[in-house]
Amino acid sequence: MLKVNTDLPIKQNYRDAMARLGAAVNIITTDGPAGRAGFTASAVCSVTDSPPMLLVCLNCASSVHPAFSQNQVLCVNTLASGQEELSRRFGGKTPMEERFAGHQWSVLDTGAPVLDGAIVAFDCRIQRVVNVGTHDVLFCEAVAVARNDGEHHGLIYFDRRYHQLSAY
Amino acid sequence: MLKVNTDLPIKQNYRDAMARLGAAVNIITTDGPAGRAGFTASAVCSVTDSPPMLLVCLNCASSVHPAFSQNQVLCVNTLASGQEELSRRFGGKTPMEERFAGHQWSVLDTGAPVLDGAIVAFDCRIQRVVNVGTHDVLFCEAVAVARNDGEHHGLIYFDRRYHQLSAY
Repeated sequence: MLKVNTDLPIKQNYRDAMARLGAAVNIITTDGPAGRAGFTASAVCSVTDSPPMLLVCLNCASSVHPAFSQNQVLCVNTLASGQEELSRRFGGKTPMEERFAGHQWSVLDTGAPVLDGAIVAFDCRIQRVVNVGTHDVLFCEAVAVARNDGEHHGLIYFDRRYHQLSAY
Repeated sequence: MLKVNTDLPIKQNYRDAMARLGAAVNIITTDGPAGRAGFTASAVCSVTDSPPMLLVCLNCASSVHPAFSQNQVLCVNTLASGQEELSRRFGGKTPMEERFAGHQWSVLDTGAPVLDGAIVAFDCRIQRVVNVGTHDVLFCEAVAVARNDGEHHGLIYFDRRYHQLSAY
C-alpha cells in the first residue's frame, strides 16, 4: 500500500519518490562560441512532434549553464547499456576536456558533439527557455536525428542503480 | 554506428528515435469541478526539488485537457510492473468511468485520484502552464508524496514494449 512518510520533510520524500520514476540516461552536449561542454541528465522528455521538440532541465547553478545559454544548441545523446562509466564521468566534477576523452564524437547539423556509441542522438536548437526556480527548462527543436542500428540495449536509472533494457 | 535515415521525414525519424528513449509509465489523474479524468503519460520529469516541482506534457486536443485545465490539480501515479493493462486502458478510447473501474483509488491532499497499487504517487497543484504548439507543459508542485514499500518493480516503456525493472 502507498504510505506518506511524515517523518521527513517534503523535499526528501520527493527525492526518494523520484528515485523510483525510472528514466533513460543522456549526455547533453554543446559547442559553439562559449566552447564545448556536457553533462548527464535524466530530466529529458518529448513535448511534441510537430515540429519535433523535446525539453531538457538544467540547473542554473551548474558550471555548464553558461555554455548552453550562449551556444544555443545542444545534442541529446541517449546512452546504451555498458556506458555507465560515461554517465558518471559527465555527472561528476571531472574537468570538461577529460569528460570527452577516449570516445568518438562527431557532429550533425548544429556542431554539438554527437556520441558515436549512443543509442540515439537528437541534434537540437534551443528555441525557448523557461525558468522554474533553481532550474531552466530548455525547449529544443530537433533538426537532425540519428539512430544506432547495432545491437544496442537501453540504459535506465531506477532506484538509484543502472538497469539494462533489452532492445528485442 | 549512428545513422541518419534520410528516406523519412524528420517527424517520423523523431518518433522512431523517441521510442528508444525509455521512460516510466504513469497514470495522470484529476478531480474537481470539471469531474474525474485520467490518461497515460510517459512525458513526465522532475524540474526542481526546491520547491518539489515536476512537469507533465499534455496534448491540447486530448479529451481530458479541459478537466485538467479547470481542476488545476493532478496526481502522477507511477505504475509498477504488472500494471500494463491499466496503462493501455488509460491510453486508449475507453470511456472515463470504465478507466477507473476495478482498482482501488484514494486521495491525499488535492482530491485527485491516487492509485493504491502505484509504485509512487505525486499529488500536485498545477502552478503554471506553458504552451508549446500542440501540447501544454503543466508545471506542478508536489504537495504530498506517497511511496509503496511493498515488493514493487518498475515498469518502463522502451522500443514500443513494456519492460520490468527490479527494485532490488
